[in-house]
Amino acid sequence: MDISRRGQTVQASPIRKFKPYADAAIADGVKIFFLNIGDPDIPTPKPILDAVRSFNDPILGYGPAQGFLELRQAIAGYFKDYGISLKADNVLITLGGSEAILMAFATVADPGDEIIIPEPFYTNYNGYASLAALKVVPLTLKVEDGFRLPPAEEFEAKITPRTRAIVLCSPNNPTGTVYTAEELGRVVKLAVKHNLFIIGDEVYKEFVYNGRRHISLLEFEEARDRVIVVDSISKRFSCCGARVGAAITRNDQVYAAMLKFAQARLCPPTIEQRAAIAAYKMGMGYFEPVRREYERRRDVLFEGLSAIPGVVVRKPEGAFYMSVRVPVRDTEKFVIWMLTDFRLDGQTVMVAPESGFYGTPGKGKDEIRAAYVLNEDDLRRALVVFRAGLEKYKATVEK
Amino acid sequence: MDISRRGQTVQASPIRKFKPYADAAIADGVKIFFLNIGDPDIPTPKPILDAVRSFNDPILGYGPAQGFLELRQAIAGYFKDYGISLKADNVLITLGGSEAILMAFATVADPGDEIIIPEPFYTNYNGYASLAALKVVPLTLKVEDGFRLPPAEEFEAKITPRTRAIVLCSPNNPTGTVYTAEELGRVVKLAVKHNLFIIGDEVYKEFVYNGRRHISLLEFEEARDRVIVVDSISKRFSCCGARVGAAITRNDQVYAAMLKFAQARLCPPTIEQRAAIAAYKMGMGYFEPVRREYERRRDVLFEGLSAIPGVVVRKPEGAFYMSVRVPVRDTEKFVIWMLTDFRLDGQTVMVAPESGFYGTPGKGKDEIRAAYVLNEDDLRRALVVFRAGLEKYKATVEK
Repeated sequence: MDISRRGQTVQASPIRKFKPYADAAIADGVKIFFLNIGDPDIPTPKPILDAVRSFNDPILGYGPAQGFLELRQAIAGYFKDYGISLKADNVLITLGGSEAILMAFATVADPGDEIIIPEPFYTNYNGYASLAALKVVPLTLKVEDGFRLPPAEEFEAKITPRTRAIVLCSPNNPTGTVYTAEELGRVVKLAVKHNLFIIGDEVYKEFVYNGRRHISLLEFEEARDRVIVVDSISKRFSCCGARVGAAITRNDQVYAAMLKFAQARLCPPTIEQRAAIAAYKMGMGYFEPVRREYERRRDVLFEGLSAIPGVVVRKPEGAFYMSVRVPVRDTEKFVIWMLTDFRLDGQTVMVAPESGFYGTPGKGKDEIRAAYVLNEDDLRRALVVFRAGLEKYKATVEK
Repeated sequence: MDISRRGQTVQASPIRKFKPYADAAIADGVKIFFLNIGDPDIPTPKPILDAVRSFNDPILGYGPAQGFLELRQAIAGYFKDYGISLKADNVLITLGGSEAILMAFATVADPGDEIIIPEPFYTNYNGYASLAALKVVPLTLKVEDGFRLPPAEEFEAKITPRTRAIVLCSPNNPTGTVYTAEELGRVVKLAVKHNLFIIGDEVYKEFVYNGRRHISLLEFEEARDRVIVVDSISKRFSCCGARVGAAITRNDQVYAAMLKFAQARLCPPTIEQRAAIAAYKMGMGYFEPVRREYERRRDVLFEGLSAIPGVVVRKPEGAFYMSVRVPVRDTEKFVIWMLTDFRLDGQTVMVAPESGFYGTPGKGKDEIRAAYVLNEDDLRRALVVFRAGLEKYKATVEK
């Protein structure tokens, strides 16, 4: 009674698969600093929770497959504030940004088709590539180069007759790199030349530091028909559990196909869409103090990690992650050991091993992803614990 | 800039694609009786809405990929009341029953593999089969036979080396047929003989009339490892907009694969899971008056339709749909005409044309699906309007 090949080969989430070890440590009374998952600790804004709490329909019924018009208009309005002109009918509301990824994958590519993704990449692309039976073609980036996009030739070396799309995430999860207009333009040019789609995961749009501005793939007029942007309220408004995202495209054929896939699953959650409308009505002024808070945290984590001997890390410009090379041979073992064997005054740290963020086998075994979703005090303490753990691991396990 | 083949060929939902005509009629001041979609008019139970309104977490954060343990335990407890023994770890919470269908499809079959589905079938299986790149192999049932399952030989004539599963929906959408223990046992035997999975869509479990009892595929001990049941709170608790369902299996390998797919999309909505826990805590005593209400509605709709000359319909035993043969050549045209051209005292009726519920091209063109999700008075009036529309259509358009 064998299950499908894709069911056998789909990757377990490297962010979530170590949870049982964490649960055991917690049951043991251990305090864990969670740097492994991007679950923000910033309180969900009151208007969002108020919208939930004031839900007063007599029947919690289906909404439209593409999402409520009012929400799609609100999102178009939000992009207008960034100088990007969209119609409500360019916006399809999805079950988190996650579903937008799946719909984009299935709409641009058939089973066996290829999508090029610079690695390390958001590991959950793997799960959706398995589900949609696509082949992920990784293009390796390096921490020493700040994970910048490579020259066009390196992309072109990966393009085959089956290549259908290039996936770009900016601000990047897991590296924190924010692509420049020049970098994005390079990929747009390639997409036009080779007739490819570009899937842009821009869910960390507001998390951009050093006074820089996020550039969206939607700003490239010459790629109007080629771009599908994945968006989400999860990080922007600290409401990851809401499961409201969007797939955005100006290609009507792409939109029509995504809408048909969306019809099969009926609709996004009704209550959270109302909450999302309330969120967008707040205006993005709300976000400025949040951005400053994350920028401070980034600085704390970056300085702390940089000071550890053998650690290689570049200061990222966005999102709330860092890809960090650490002086151990296998970070999966290290992560488990930190949860099962190491405590400093009853505390330990959980990070995500980064091999699962690579498509190339064997890559990333000496890297971790660290998320700075804790307040500064917790982050400083987490750094002390992490450093002590790393030193002990090297002195005892990898001695 | 072509999109994928699956994106080009995925079916538009025949339940939802005529909505623009309905919207235009409404804008025109027309009152429409909606018999096209199974969106119940029964108020959502208060404990569910109370759970939503009392959501008081400071952060609307991620939950576990498999859903909250408390909810999985509640669902296991619910099945226990039906004499079905499950562990919480047999239950994976999904984004509506819809996502459970997708996960089941992708876990049992690879692109190009076949799944056998008796037709007419719930049309949204098509969307998910396209997404997962599976081939739906339909097995035609007939209204004259009450849409009963055919003898084993008719199933076997459809089995090929690529067949991976048989999909059964009971109580059935769109036919309302409830399969007997003998019918289900026939399919279980076939599945064992040919080494197939059985995907059981049982979301209408409580909607069974005439004092009959629903039989679940989970009751067949000999198929323990082969069965995946799709469940949902949508119809059971009148909360279709909540998007909380479940995929249930005792096959650990199937569960593990579905969980990995689930990890890619992070988690089901947090607030509605809390609402679902409250729902199950009510106990199913809540449901008995609801069942009686639907049984009365079924009788009203059945009697009304039976009385129309040329209409062929069998009295269904469950769910809240009827598959109805009507004396027109193309029910798609008829449905559109009812929305654009026909009014009786400013009213019209919307039903779903049934060709989209068939996998065999050309089938079902003289059939509709009617849902009895309106109160008795509205249903009686809808019948008057429908009958008048049908007669005028035959006298003018198909004259």
